[in-house]
Amino acid sequence: MSGNTLGKLFCVTNFGESHGPAIGCVVDGCPPGLALSAEDIQVELDRRRPGTSRHVTQRQEADQVEILSGVYEGVTTGTPIGLLIRNTDARSKDYSNITDTFRPGHADYAYWSRYGVRDPRGGGRSSARLTAPTVAAGAIAKKWLREQHGVQVRGYMSQLGDIRIPFTSWAHVPENPFYAPDAAIVPELETYMDALRRDGDSIGARIEVIAEGVPAGWGEPLYDRLDADIAHAMMGLNAVKGVSIGAGFESIAQRGSEHGDEITPEGFLSNNAGGVLGGISSGQAVTVSLAIKPTSSIRVERRSIDRAGNPVMVQTLGRHDPCVGIRATPIAESLLALVLIDHALRWRSQCLDVSERP
Amino acid sequence: MSGNTLGKLFCVTNFGESHGPAIGCVVDGCPPGLALSAEDIQVELDRRRPGTSRHVTQRQEADQVEILSGVYEGVTTGTPIGLLIRNTDARSKDYSNITDTFRPGHADYAYWSRYGVRDPRGGGRSSARLTAPTVAAGAIAKKWLREQHGVQVRGYMSQLGDIRIPFTSWAHVPENPFYAPDAAIVPELETYMDALRRDGDSIGARIEVIAEGVPAGWGEPLYDRLDADIAHAMMGLNAVKGVSIGAGFESIAQRGSEHGDEITPEGFLSNNAGGVLGGISSGQAVTVSLAIKPTSSIRVERRSIDRAGNPVMVQTLGRHDPCVGIRATPIAESLLALVLIDHALRWRSQCLDVSERP
Amino acid sequence: MSGNTLGKLFCVTNFGESHGPAIGCVVDGCPPGLALSAEDIQVELDRRRPGTSRHVTQRQEADQVEILSGVYEGVTTGTPIGLLIRNTDARSKDYSNITDTFRPGHADYAYWSRYGVRDPRGGGRSSARLTAPTVAAGAIAKKWLREQHGVQVRGYMSQLGDIRIPFTSWAHVPENPFYAPDAAIVPELETYMDALRRDGDSIGARIEVIAEGVPAGWGEPLYDRLDADIAHAMMGLNAVKGVSIGAGFESIAQRGSEHGDEITPEGFLSNNAGGVLGGISSGQAVTVSLAIKPTSSIRVERRSIDRAGNPVMVQTLGRHDPCVGIRATPIAESLLALVLIDHALRWRSQCLDVSERP
Amino acid sequence: MSGNTLGKLFCVTNFGESHGPAIGCVVDGCPPGLALSAEDIQVELDRRRPGTSRHVTQRQEADQVEILSGVYEGVTTGTPIGLLIRNTDARSKDYSNITDTFRPGHADYAYWSRYGVRDPRGGGRSSARLTAPTVAAGAIAKKWLREQHGVQVRGYMSQLGDIRIPFTSWAHVPENPFYAPDAAIVPELETYMDALRRDGDSIGARIEVIAEGVPAGWGEPLYDRLDADIAHAMMGLNAVKGVSIGAGFESIAQRGSEHGDEITPEGFLSNNAGGVLGGISSGQAVTVSLAIKPTSSIRVERRSIDRAGNPVMVQTLGRHDPCVGIRATPIAESLLALVLIDHALRWRSQCLDVSERP
Repeated sequence: MSGNTLGKLFCVTNFGESHGPAIGCVVDGCPPGLALSAEDIQVELDRRRPGTSRHVTQRQEADQVEILSGVYEGVTTGTPIGLLIRNTDARSKDYSNITDTFRPGHADYAYWSRYGVRDPRGGGRSSARLTAPTVAAGAIAKKWLREQHGVQVRGYMSQLGDIRIPFTSWAHVPENPFYAPDAAIVPELETYMDALRRDGDSIGARIEVIAEGVPAGWGEPLYDRLDADIAHAMMGLNAVKGVSIGAGFESIAQRGSEHGDEITPEGFLSNNAGGVLGGISSGQAVTVSLAIKPTSSIRVERRSIDRAGNPVMVQTLGRHDPCVGIRATPIAESLLALVLIDHALRWRSQCLDVSERP
Repeated sequence: MSGNTLGKLFCVTNFGESHGPAIGCVVDGCPPGLALSAEDIQVELDRRRPGTSRHVTQRQEADQVEILSGVYEGVTTGTPIGLLIRNTDARSKDYSNITDTFRPGHADYAYWSRYGVRDPRGGGRSSARLTAPTVAAGAIAKKWLREQHGVQVRGYMSQLGDIRIPFTSWAHVPENPFYAPDAAIVPELETYMDALRRDGDSIGARIEVIAEGVPAGWGEPLYDRLDADIAHAMMGLNAVKGVSIGAGFESIAQRGSEHGDEITPEGFLSNNAGGVLGGISSGQAVTVSLAIKPTSSIRVERRSIDRAGNPVMVQTLGRHDPCVGIRATPIAESLLALVLIDHALRWRSQCLDVSERP
Repeated sequence: MSGNTLGKLFCVTNFGESHGPAIGCVVDGCPPGLALSAEDIQVELDRRRPGTSRHVTQRQEADQVEILSGVYEGVTTGTPIGLLIRNTDARSKDYSNITDTFRPGHADYAYWSRYGVRDPRGGGRSSARLTAPTVAAGAIAKKWLREQHGVQVRGYMSQLGDIRIPFTSWAHVPENPFYAPDAAIVPELETYMDALRRDGDSIGARIEVIAEGVPAGWGEPLYDRLDADIAHAMMGLNAVKGVSIGAGFESIAQRGSEHGDEITPEGFLSNNAGGVLGGISSGQAVTVSLAIKPTSSIRVERRSIDRAGNPVMVQTLGRHDPCVGIRATPIAESLLALVLIDHALRWRSQCLDVSERP
Repeated sequence: MSGNTLGKLFCVTNFGESHGPAIGCVVDGCPPGLALSAEDIQVELDRRRPGTSRHVTQRQEADQVEILSGVYEGVTTGTPIGLLIRNTDARSKDYSNITDTFRPGHADYAYWSRYGVRDPRGGGRSSARLTAPTVAAGAIAKKWLREQHGVQVRGYMSQLGDIRIPFTSWAHVPENPFYAPDAAIVPELETYMDALRRDGDSIGARIEVIAEGVPAGWGEPLYDRLDADIAHAMMGLNAVKGVSIGAGFESIAQRGSEHGDEITPEGFLSNNAGGVLGGISSGQAVTVSLAIKPTSSIRVERRSIDRAGNPVMVQTLGRHDPCVGIRATPIAESLLALVLIDHALRWRSQCLDVSERP
C-alpha cells in the first residue's frame, strides 16, 4: 500500500530502478491452474522492448524475464509469481551532467522534493523502464482473461502530435513501430519522427485501448468503479496527462438523448458509455483513450535551476524516446488487462453464486 | 476494500441509497486535534444540495448532517467520524414505471447484471445522491488542509454543452447556480437550461478543480501517483467520462520544448504539468479537468429493453438534474481534497523526518 | 485502513464511542441475495447486551439496531449495509472523577499518549461497548456461512478465574448467563461472582470458539493465513491477552508423532491442528481459545498518576462488568464468523473454478 | 492483499518456494535516508540459516541476499527494496515418495485442497524456508527502529518440550544454537535433541520476544491494535499454535487488582499488560510469547491417505528441523520489528503534529 502495488485481488508489486541491478515484480493472486511459461510473458515484453526501431530509445535491453516462483510443471500454483528482469545496458555516466540540475517537465525535481535522496541514473525509479514489469504481469492477466472469459485486449495509436491516424484495420497495428492501425500513414509518421529527432525535441501522442468480450457485471461502486480503476491505472502510466472512457470529453457537448446508448433485444445501438455504466461493465467493448505528453528529456536547451536554487541551462543527452507514446500501446493494454482481471476476481468473490435472476 | 472506501490513510466509507432511510459515511484516519462542528460540514453540503435553483432536481432534501462519533468537545479525537444524513423527500412511486425496464445510459442495467437484485427507487446506490457523504467527508479534508498546510481547493464550471465559460474571477463563482466564473454569461446559461428543460433533455458539462498551496513532495510512485489517485477519485464520480491534469489532451500535440515547464529561481514559468511531475506534486497548483456526461434520466422517449429482454420505449419522469454537472463543482472539490489529505498523511508517515537535504 | 476496518472482502468499518450519540458499522462486501432483517441481527445483539443478569454491567441499553442501507425488500443488494445503534443510557458524569487520572490496566493512558485528546466518558472509543457493531456484523456473517456452506459457529466459557468448567453439552450454554456448557457448575460460578462483586474486584476468563462445517481450502498463505487472521481478530477484542488454535500452548510439550493428526479414509483421528494446517482450513472443526484479562475498572483503590504526572489513588465507580469474559462468547463467535466469511469470499475469487482435481 | 504481504505502510511482499529457483521479497514503504547494506541484512539471515548446528536441518544454504533496488549509494531512497536469495541446495527427489500422500500435521493436504495443484518439493510454498525473506525485511525494520527510536527487539527460547529454560542473561542467548538465555541448561537441551533425532521424532518449543524502548502511543484501535497485529504476524509464522501478550493465559486466573499494572511517577510497577493497553503501546517493554508445535515431517511412520483417498503409511525422510522452534527466535524478532515499524509509520502519519498536550 505504499504506492508500488496495483490491484486488490490480482496484485502486482513492482520494484527496481532504470540503472540498478534488476527490475521486476511479484504477482500475487493469480488463480491456480493457468498454463504459464516465460515465453508467454516474453512475447509481450518484446512488444514494449527498447531499441527495436530508430524512433525509440537506442538502449539495448534484452528484457529477458525469469520466473522465480509460483509456477510448477508449467502451471500456476496460486502462490506469488516472482518475475525478474536484469538490467544489462545501463550507462549511468550519461547522467553525470544532470546530477545536480532538474529537467523541465521531468520527475527528478518532484522526487528530490519528496525523498531528499536522488538517483539520477536514467531517471531512477521514475523511468519508463519500470513499465516492463507491468507488461510482464499484464501478459499473465491477458492470458487468463482470454482463456477464462474470451476477453481480448488490444490497442493502437490514434494520434502522433498533430497527425490524426485513421483506424483502417487491426491487421496493420503489429506491422509498424507506431502501433498505427493504418499502414498508409506510416511513412508520414516516420518522416515526422526523423525531423523531430534532428531537432532534439519530443512530441505527444494519443493511444486507444479496447477490451472486447468483457461480460456485463464487472466493477464495484461506489468509489472503485471499473472506470475509476482504469483511470487510476492509466494516469499512473508515465507521461499520461488525460484519460477518457467512451465518448470522453465529447460527452460535454452531447445531449442525453444523443449520449445514452439505446438498447434493443439485439444489443446496444452505440457505445458512448465505452462499455461502463455506473462503474460496472455493460457487456459492450470497454474503450479507453490516453493523452501522452512529450518526453521531458530532450536535447533542446531549457531554463532550470540546480539543487542550490541557482539558474542553469539544461540539455539532456543520454538515450531517450523522442515520443514515449510509441511504446505505450502494449503497456496500456497491460494496464487495462490488470484492472479487468482484478475486477473479474472481485466479481467471482461476490456474485458468482447468484444463480437465479429475474 | 469492496469499492465503497476512498483513501488509504484518510478513509471514507460510504453507505446508503437514494430512497433508503439514510445515507452517510465513516471517516477513519482524521488526525486528532482538528476543531470540527456539524456546521463546518453543513456549509459544504449546502453547496451541493438539491432544490436550490430551478436548474437542478426539485427534490427537497435538507441534507442535515449529524456527527455520530469521533468529535469530543468540538475537537476530533483521532477515532472514526460517523456522519449521518437522513433521506426525507423520497418519492419511490415515481419509479414504479421503470422497475422492469432499463434507461439508456443509466447504471440500472449494469447493476442488475452484477447483483441480480435491483433497487429501482431513485437509482438506488447508483444515484448521485451518494455524493453527499463524499462532500461531507471532503469538508473535513478541506478544513485540515487549509489549517495544516494552507491548501485551498476550489472549482468552477468551464463549459456547459457547447457554451465555453470564460474565467473572469473567482468572485463570480459563488454568485450563480452554475459555479460559473463569469457573471456576464449567466443569463445565456439560464436561457439554455430553460430550453433544455422544456425539451425534457439533458446536457454535459466541463468542470475545473484547482488546489493551490500544495507543497512539493506529495504523491507516491509507481502506481498510486498523486495524479493517478486524482483520476481514480474523479472518474469514480457519477457521470464523469474523462479526467485530465494540466495540459491534459492538449499535451498530445505539444512538443517537449513547449510542454516542459521551465524553472527559474523565482519558480516555474508555466504549468502544463498541472502541478504533478512523475506522480508527485511539484509545488505548483494542482489543476484538474472533468468531462461530465448528460444525465441519462430524461423525458425524451428512447428505445430499450425490459428484464425479459423485450423491446420497450422508456421515458423517465421523476425529479432529475437536467445537467448533473451543475452541482458537480463542490463534489469535485471534495474529491480533490480527499486525495490530497490522503497523500499528505502518507508523506508524513514516510518523509517527515528527512531533516537535512542537500 | 486506519485500524477500524476488519476484513478485506467482507469489510466491517466500526464507529462510535461508549457515551456518544450512537455506535454502528458499515458492512461492505456482503454478497447480494441474502435474506436479511433487523431481527436476524437483533437476536445476536441481545445475546451480548448489558444488563441481562446481575453478573454484568447494569447499564441499560436496548441495543436496538437499525438497518440504514444495503437491504431492499428483505434481501441484501450487494451494496454496503449501514447499521446504527443509538446510545440511550449514557451517564457520563459517573466518570467526572477519572477525567484527569489513569486507571491501572486501562486503555485511557495509552489513548491519551497516542491522541493527546481524551474522551473519558465510559472509556470512549476503548469501551467494550464497541463490540456491539462487531456482533451485528457477525450476525450477517453467521447467517451467510450457515446458508451457503452449512458452517456453524458456537462458543462457550471454559474457565472463570480458577474454576475450570467441564464441557457437558452445548444445550446448557444458552441457559445460563455465563455461556457455561455445564449447568451443574453454574451455582458455583454465581457464588464466585457475587463474592467478587462485593470485593469490588474483577476476574479473567477463558473462552472457546468452534466453527464446524468449514470446508477444506479456506485460508491464504503466507502471512494472511486463516489462523493468523483469527489471531488478529481475537487479539483485537478488548481484554484478550492470548489466542491459541487447536492444541495451542500444549503443542510445546508434544512430540510430532503425537501432535500430527493422523488421517484415515474416514477422516482425521484427532484435532491438535484445530482445523488449520499451513494457514488453510483442513476440513476439521476450527477451534480457538481466548485468554481474557480481568476488567481494569474496579472499586479497589490502586496507585496511579494524573495527567500532570503526580501520584494519585484511583478507584473506579460507574457501571462495569466484573468479568468482561462473561459477555465475550457471542463476540468471539462473531469475530470467528467474520474471519471465515472473509476467507470464504477470497477462496471464491481464486479457487472456485478449479473444477478438476487429481 | 492476497495473503503474501505483511504490513500496511511498511509492506513486505514475499515470494518463492523451498525448491524453486529463488525466494525473496519486496519491501515497500521504507523511509528514505536509512544507511543500508547487504551486510546489515546478511547478519540477521545468518542467525536463521539452516545447517549451522546438528540440531537443525542439514540443508546447506548460504542464504546470500542481493539488494536489487531501493538503495543508492548506501542509503535507502524511499522506493521499493527488492531482495533476492537464490536456492542452491534443493534436493527435490527426496520428496518423490510423498508426492501422492499427505503428512499428518503438514500443510500439504490443505494446500492441495485449496489450490488443486501441488508442489511437493520441500513443502513448496508452505516451507519454513519462506521465513528467510521475512528475516531479511525484519533486518531493515530493526535497524530503522534502533536508529530512529532506540527500540531494541530481542528474543529467546523459554521452553523446549518439557524443559523450561530459566532466564539467566541476554548474554547467553547468542552463544548456543537454541537461543537459550541460560548456558548451564544447554547440555541438557543437546542431549534431549540427540535422543529425539535418533527416534526420528520432533518436539515443540516456546519463544519469548521483547521490544524495549517502544514509546507510548503506537497502535491503532479498534481492530488493527498493536497486539492484534502482533498476534497476526506471529500466528502467521509456520508451526505457531498460540500467541500471548504480557501475562497471557495467566490473566485468566488473575484478579483485576493483581493484573492491572499500577503506575507511579517513576513508571509502571509491573508489566502484566505486556506493554500494550487498549491496543496501543504503553511505553513499557512489549512482551510476546509463542507456542510452536513440533515439526510434522518426521521419520516415525504414521497413518494417512493418498490423493485417491486410500489409506497409506507415511514416513518423511528428507532433511528437516526436528524442532522448528530452534530457529524461530530470529524470525519472531523480525516479525515483531515489522509490526512495530508499521505502527511507527502510522503513528507518524496521524499523530506527529500533536504538539500541545494537556
